[in-house]
Amino acid sequence: MPLMTAEDYEESLRQLNLVVYMFGKRVENVVDDPIIRPSMKAVAKTYELAHRPEHEDIMTATSHITGKKINRFSHIHRSVEDLVKKSKMGRLLGRETGCCFQRCVGMDALNALSIVTFNIDEKYGTAYYKRFMKYLEYVQENDLTCDGAMTDPKGDRSLPPHRQQDPDQYMHVVEERKDGIVVRGAKAHQTGAVNSHEIIIMPTIAMREDDKDYALSFAMPSDGSGILYIMGRQSCDTRKLEGDTIDRGNVLFGGHEALVVFDDVFVPWERVFMYKEHDLAGQLVENFAAYHRQSYACKVGVGDVLIGAAQTAAEYNGVAGASHIRDKIVEMNHLNETLYCGCIACASEGHREPSGTYNVNVLLANVHKHNVTRFPYEIARLAQDIAGGLMVTMPSNEDLKSSETGKWLEKYLRGHSDIPTENRMRVLRLIENITLGTAAVGYLTESMHGAGSPQAQRIMISRRVNMGEKQRAAKKLCGIDEKE
Amino acid sequence: MPLMTAEDYEESLRQLNLVVYMFGKRVENVVDDPIIRPSMKAVAKTYELAHRPEHEDIMTATSHITGKKINRFSHIHRSVEDLVKKSKMGRLLGRETGCCFQRCVGMDALNALSIVTFNIDEKYGTAYYKRFMKYLEYVQENDLTCDGAMTDPKGDRSLPPHRQQDPDQYMHVVEERKDGIVVRGAKAHQTGAVNSHEIIIMPTIAMREDDKDYALSFAMPSDGSGILYIMGRQSCDTRKLEGDTIDRGNVLFGGHEALVVFDDVFVPWERVFMYKEHDLAGQLVENFAAYHRQSYACKVGVGDVLIGAAQTAAEYNGVAGASHIRDKIVEMNHLNETLYCGCIACASEGHREPSGTYNVNVLLANVHKHNVTRFPYEIARLAQDIAGGLMVTMPSNEDLKSSETGKWLEKYLRGHSDIPTENRMRVLRLIENITLGTAAVGYLTESMHGAGSPQAQRIMISRRVNMGEKQRAAKKLCGIDEKE
Amino acid sequence: MPLMTAEDYEESLRQLNLVVYMFGKRVENVVDDPIIRPSMKAVAKTYELAHRPEHEDIMTATSHITGKKINRFSHIHRSVEDLVKKSKMGRLLGRETGCCFQRCVGMDALNALSIVTFNIDEKYGTAYYKRFMKYLEYVQENDLTCDGAMTDPKGDRSLPPHRQQDPDQYMHVVEERKDGIVVRGAKAHQTGAVNSHEIIIMPTIAMREDDKDYALSFAMPSDGSGILYIMGRQSCDTRKLEGDTIDRGNVLFGGHEALVVFDDVFVPWERVFMYKEHDLAGQLVENFAAYHRQSYACKVGVGDVLIGAAQTAAEYNGVAGASHIRDKIVEMNHLNETLYCGCIACASEGHREPSGTYNVNVLLANVHKHNVTRFPYEIARLAQDIAGGLMVTMPSNEDLKSSETGKWLEKYLRGHSDIPTENRMRVLRLIENITLGTAAVGYLTESMHGAGSPQAQRIMISRRVNMGEKQRAAKKLCGIDEKE
Amino acid sequence: MPLMTAEDYEESLRQLNLVVYMFGKRVENVVDDPIIRPSMKAVAKTYELAHRPEHEDIMTATSHITGKKINRFSHIHRSVEDLVKKSKMGRLLGRETGCCFQRCVGMDALNALSIVTFNIDEKYGTAYYKRFMKYLEYVQENDLTCDGAMTDPKGDRSLPPHRQQDPDQYMHVVEERKDGIVVRGAKAHQTGAVNSHEIIIMPTIAMREDDKDYALSFAMPSDGSGILYIMGRQSCDTRKLEGDTIDRGNVLFGGHEALVVFDDVFVPWERVFMYKEHDLAGQLVENFAAYHRQSYACKVGVGDVLIGAAQTAAEYNGVAGASHIRDKIVEMNHLNETLYCGCIACASEGHREPSGTYNVNVLLANVHKHNVTRFPYEIARLAQDIAGGLMVTMPSNEDLKSSETGKWLEKYLRGHSDIPTENRMRVLRLIENITLGTAAVGYLTESMHGAGSPQAQRIMISRRVNMGEKQRAAKKLCGIDEKE
Repeated sequence: MPLMTAEDYEESLRQLNLVVYMFGKRVENVVDDPIIRPSMKAVAKTYELAHRPEHEDIMTATSHITGKKINRFSHIHRSVEDLVKKSKMGRLLGRETGCCFQRCVGMDALNALSIVTFNIDEKYGTAYYKRFMKYLEYVQENDLTCDGAMTDPKGDRSLPPHRQQDPDQYMHVVEERKDGIVVRGAKAHQTGAVNSHEIIIMPTIAMREDDKDYALSFAMPSDGSGILYIMGRQSCDTRKLEGDTIDRGNVLFGGHEALVVFDDVFVPWERVFMYKEHDLAGQLVENFAAYHRQSYACKVGVGDVLIGAAQTAAEYNGVAGASHIRDKIVEMNHLNETLYCGCIACASEGHREPSGTYNVNVLLANVHKHNVTRFPYEIARLAQDIAGGLMVTMPSNEDLKSSETGKWLEKYLRGHSDIPTENRMRVLRLIENITLGTAAVGYLTESMHGAGSPQAQRIMISRRVNMGEKQRAAKKLCGIDEKE
Repeated sequence: MPLMTAEDYEESLRQLNLVVYMFGKRVENVVDDPIIRPSMKAVAKTYELAHRPEHEDIMTATSHITGKKINRFSHIHRSVEDLVKKSKMGRLLGRETGCCFQRCVGMDALNALSIVTFNIDEKYGTAYYKRFMKYLEYVQENDLTCDGAMTDPKGDRSLPPHRQQDPDQYMHVVEERKDGIVVRGAKAHQTGAVNSHEIIIMPTIAMREDDKDYALSFAMPSDGSGILYIMGRQSCDTRKLEGDTIDRGNVLFGGHEALVVFDDVFVPWERVFMYKEHDLAGQLVENFAAYHRQSYACKVGVGDVLIGAAQTAAEYNGVAGASHIRDKIVEMNHLNETLYCGCIACASEGHREPSGTYNVNVLLANVHKHNVTRFPYEIARLAQDIAGGLMVTMPSNEDLKSSETGKWLEKYLRGHSDIPTENRMRVLRLIENITLGTAAVGYLTESMHGAGSPQAQRIMISRRVNMGEKQRAAKKLCGIDEKE
Repeated sequence: MPLMTAEDYEESLRQLNLVVYMFGKRVENVVDDPIIRPSMKAVAKTYELAHRPEHEDIMTATSHITGKKINRFSHIHRSVEDLVKKSKMGRLLGRETGCCFQRCVGMDALNALSIVTFNIDEKYGTAYYKRFMKYLEYVQENDLTCDGAMTDPKGDRSLPPHRQQDPDQYMHVVEERKDGIVVRGAKAHQTGAVNSHEIIIMPTIAMREDDKDYALSFAMPSDGSGILYIMGRQSCDTRKLEGDTIDRGNVLFGGHEALVVFDDVFVPWERVFMYKEHDLAGQLVENFAAYHRQSYACKVGVGDVLIGAAQTAAEYNGVAGASHIRDKIVEMNHLNETLYCGCIACASEGHREPSGTYNVNVLLANVHKHNVTRFPYEIARLAQDIAGGLMVTMPSNEDLKSSETGKWLEKYLRGHSDIPTENRMRVLRLIENITLGTAAVGYLTESMHGAGSPQAQRIMISRRVNMGEKQRAAKKLCGIDEKE
Repeated sequence: MPLMTAEDYEESLRQLNLVVYMFGKRVENVVDDPIIRPSMKAVAKTYELAHRPEHEDIMTATSHITGKKINRFSHIHRSVEDLVKKSKMGRLLGRETGCCFQRCVGMDALNALSIVTFNIDEKYGTAYYKRFMKYLEYVQENDLTCDGAMTDPKGDRSLPPHRQQDPDQYMHVVEERKDGIVVRGAKAHQTGAVNSHEIIIMPTIAMREDDKDYALSFAMPSDGSGILYIMGRQSCDTRKLEGDTIDRGNVLFGGHEALVVFDDVFVPWERVFMYKEHDLAGQLVENFAAYHRQSYACKVGVGDVLIGAAQTAAEYNGVAGASHIRDKIVEMNHLNETLYCGCIACASEGHREPSGTYNVNVLLANVHKHNVTRFPYEIARLAQDIAGGLMVTMPSNEDLKSSETGKWLEKYLRGHSDIPTENRMRVLRLIENITLGTAAVGYLTESMHGAGSPQAQRIMISRRVNMGEKQRAAKKLCGIDEKE
């Protein structure tokens, strides 16, 4: 089933036997849980759009393994054009869902592994690439959603993995068997974890010889034995428990993150893609990070939603024509399109890796992500400016529906007279959702820390710019001849 | 009882018979309602600190009416020193409560009325000032908390009050009687409304002759007949319903806003402070706005809390020594102290009004507030940067307490090994609270729109700077002689 | 001579008979004038690099008319790849010269005309395109530098051309003859004007029927009869008169601008490319503007020089390892590469026009240029921060060479002990040059106003974003169904 | 002569026998040198305004030594009011001169010494304070201008003074005699040095025992034997040699800096104010720095000029009514007044030192100066935005006066038709002067590095904020009880 429908996808999740905890209790029915379900619907959108003719070019690709049409999320980029389409797919889905649709981490993990497994084999004569390609075909053929899992808890950040007081602070092998390995550890901040069929583990930092037990990459079915999930809570998460209410802001979609615990999990050899090749751990981290920094193209799409909401709020408030409002809308668009330039440029300047996979320009991908740690905050600030204070002082949906208070809200919260008060409230709740509520987790804090915190990008930027070239140019122009 | 204790204050609220709605239903016990109570506790802090010797100088003053020691919140500023202490009081209480403590609007309304009632009398030979002074003495003697209510719903913002389709979009008189007037309308975004003994109504814009029925100012007991309150909801408000949980972030205090409806309320003449003197409506608005823009001194105190939380989170994360973290803490402090400079400078440059009341420098008060619409957003962004992504992916308090999941959180969410995991979670929840949760309403959105949206300050800045002086200086220096 | 050498180019300029004024006097020998010559050398670099094998791919292209190898500056973009190479050529030359190399305006004019002459013909059945192609072939065959001239003086900006008090404030036809037209007017801010063989006139704004006499485009030899040039002066221009001094900062190159006056100039028909087709004037403006906004790719190259200079200054000052210095270098690079993303993205997202010419994405080109009005100022500020105050308090080259004062400078201006004092002074003078001196004109003020002032870009951004799409997305997500 | 006139001052300078070099040659007549003279005229303004009744309150004070009316520049601050007036004096003179008026360094040195000489005596039983007071009286009685000289060349910045390869990189004592000491070294970046009667030397960093020979403070007549000055050059300095030209921008005033060399200078004991008390060197540095950071109040005045010039340019360009122009003027004012808040607040929050001298709030003075390293750059950027590109492409004054080219400039550079073209050029040249020319040295680069580079302020901010208080507040609110 290389192209599942949204319905197929939902049904496939029902077949899983995930061990998920939330608010201290086991979640019996994950798919229908009111807090989790909107995040599942966001992933389902990645399946739905692949069937829409108008999005086919962006959402699907031709597998270089099977030649079949597949969802781009399980595709290995084979050209610069593929990379550019990936950025466009991110923006499209961000705009369609207004939140994190979660499926890019898996795509980025698959692409990074397609490069690094090849390189390990080149260096060590191993056969990871072939093994990985078989796994990849399985993913493509079944149109699976994968969680790409990188971030370990890390414990004391000043110490390497093998010197941690608690050796499990980084995922590691605890037993080697004939048929596979047993691993222990955890991965934090796992976006969309419980909406995934597979989880792909990667190391979280570059490693030395001493850390070789931590230099691991492998894939597991998400409901593999010994894997458990503890849901993270988000700002305003429980509004989803309040029923079909406008107070949710985004009434359709959401995201989620979870802490994933590997409590001595057995992994068969055919699913192991790196095993103690510590010297290539850093390469895997860096490639995944670069791809994933590009993936923040999605925030441009969420930005589209927020700009559209701000413009709508301005119209409903009756002030859309004021010059300062128009100017703020321009500024929001300017910042949002500057972000778009970043994700397009790092793709457009992509290159071919030895495995044949196309990779982004690492410097520009980092530059892009670094802007993502800044501009959404300013866009959000401007959206709040335009929305007005009512966004945070507005009574609840139940007050609007109440026979006692509804009439007062209808009367006194009406803005532009042609617009139903409810619609005004709806759009303000959407702005609240993206700037303070569940979606702010994705649009703001995840923009800050996802795919690496700002300082991680600054380090990469400092490593990747060619300072020698710049200094030579400067010295030549001012007449310094140093005979270096 | 010129200086109530916190307990007196709480008890006094229990005596009120407020008509309050929340989630579509009447709130029977306002004081003990779990969502409202933390906001009451924040106001109570203004009473408590007045009794502490170390804060006496800041928190209390000597009434120029009775000569008694009173809470500074009911004092009329009689010197530049008073104005400076007001700014310091705001910072102190912001730091003590980490949220909006709500009592400054009343203080600002009283001070503005002390100026404008005097000026109306000067112009029209009326006797408002004496009437107002009697009311003020009542407030001081009983140490009351007043809600200063300015913002009308405004309907179609392109039309003046008298041309609105619905004439009630601005508060107006609907009947004049021998013993008083009957008024109708509503006031939006009323901070601390249901924690107040009194509500003081002021017009929301400058007005012309045609709008004279809207040129009103008066005071009412908060539980006056015909007054009803509909509570606004805040991001994460219902976490307060989850019991004694660390997930509240700020486990002690909060704020609230309400829509206040005046459904044909009778106001006796002795409580009317402006009646149809439309030409002075603008003056009242401007004076209240200037005082209230100064009052955003409080955000410096909330900034102190957020900086302290960020520093603590960095220590718990084990990264407090990293140069980029230290630099971000410096930046947060720099921005916060720049705000402090604003609220001190507008006070220090204050002046005496004809009534003897001291007023802030209006230009600098607007400059101060305008910075408040910007810097807290950047401070919040930096706090999220330092906090790390865990702030928004962390499981709930119940997961920590659960026998099934607690051990995993204890193990994998531990940062610095000497620090209990719970403490790390607590401080991250506090940062969440101030940057995304209930307190973000006050620290961010209220900083944007409270005391007037940014554009309101820009208009005032453009009116108040002396451009002629600047242009003359420029022309002289470049040799332009224009014989103006 | 489709690929002139730098020497050929210089010689070709000597053949011109330009009427140039500077400091109120006619310049007899333009090519050897010490103030003008460095700007000529910068243009010469565009000829020199075309002969270097390592830059051939970027600097040259294959003419779609003749099939010959030509300088890219006279090429019509025939693919997205061409557009991307144009951006890279800009950065390359900016880095090589550290200033404005002036030749892009002509390239942008040629490309815009290749689109618009085609479109005029389509609409009106005229034959401009063929005429233009013949002219283009002449330019390509002779490897000419063209000045693309757009900006009229504009007089009273609130009035259209035909209503100006002085009708010459916009270039217009004053006589129509059998063999051509006579035109009058002026073009301001003409970059590289006196280093050009040709001047290509375009209208400066969209026009209506009444303005049709102003809807003109044509080309003239730069030394055509009736054309005169008055050189603009730049900050620190006369340092070039001080001889071979390090105080020039950039000791090799510079830029220039001139006011060009057309004092009743006759233009033969074969060089007229638009004549009274007022309804397409705006299209020509917009296309030229979009191409030229892309051309601000060059500032990324100047940014490279400034970053290289700042890093070198830090090393010479002995502080390159300080964490705050390293962080500022990262920030400069981050901003500079963000600009790079803009000029790459607008090219990568380019499209084919009906004429077969490839055009940039207009929205992104405007976004790119708009960032250019901001980031170079911040990069310059950071460069001054790193350079230290000595940059502006340093005695002159003559003090360094003087027997009386040289020893003191050698002793007291030495930074890092291994570095000759002169070298430290050289690099600081280069930073001064780019942030305050002659090159600041190009790097800062031209970045602000060249190719349109910031507000021009904001207007284009507001026109080009698809607000309807954004609003539909927002409304869908918050449940607003408006049946538009 | 406790209050010299401007003429007295000029005459007094003629009596000096300064050894000044510029462009490698001795300057014979310093006062009348065309490059230096405008800077002298700026200092003279501090004398002139002291005689104007409307400025008397700000410009003069009553000596606490003699009880006579003196120029505030030689006054020791005896109250918070004095500190506030000092800030206002800075803004006033900045607005009057549009540049650096140079006299504040001496005032700041005197005030810092009044504190520290007292404190040395308290600690060591010395008699510096009395000696200093005698010197101060001499300065006050003769209304002298003093150069406060702190910055040593510093050589290798990673080494303390006594470990420098060249021991003279920091000013030090080379011989102790019965009647005084002989010193050697240099002071860099000395603002207004050759317009000063006196030079007051202070150490440039905190020092340890090993550096005690460098722990020196003393005063010398500026023409003392062995002292020589090498003038720094500024952007566009030689325009002052072009005669009475509008191209100077600021046609009246300027600033200057010099490298001052002490080539074995004898200092009598009665002028020595610190001698080897190394442990108080840091205190002197810090107090001088705090006062001097406050002194950047002057940039608010220069900002006034630039705002006035921008507004005038907008009017002359005929675009003053455009909403984006008005908004930029508001932003310039907002930033400028935010700076004003800083210099007022650090004064208003001042305190008494043991000597009776009033000192500024050190934290806020640093915060103020830190904003000065940022906002003038943004104000300058906005001024360039408003000015338009003509500011840097405009032909010279001689072109305007020339019979051949003047008519073209009159015709084509005219903006608003009622305004003489020359006036338009004048105001644009003034903006050029402040943002790129001689005054940019003071308004931008000196704002960056004067009174300490940005990092120096960041270090002080990090030292002076009370982090403990902030952390305690945060912990209390989130329920962390640490029993510290």
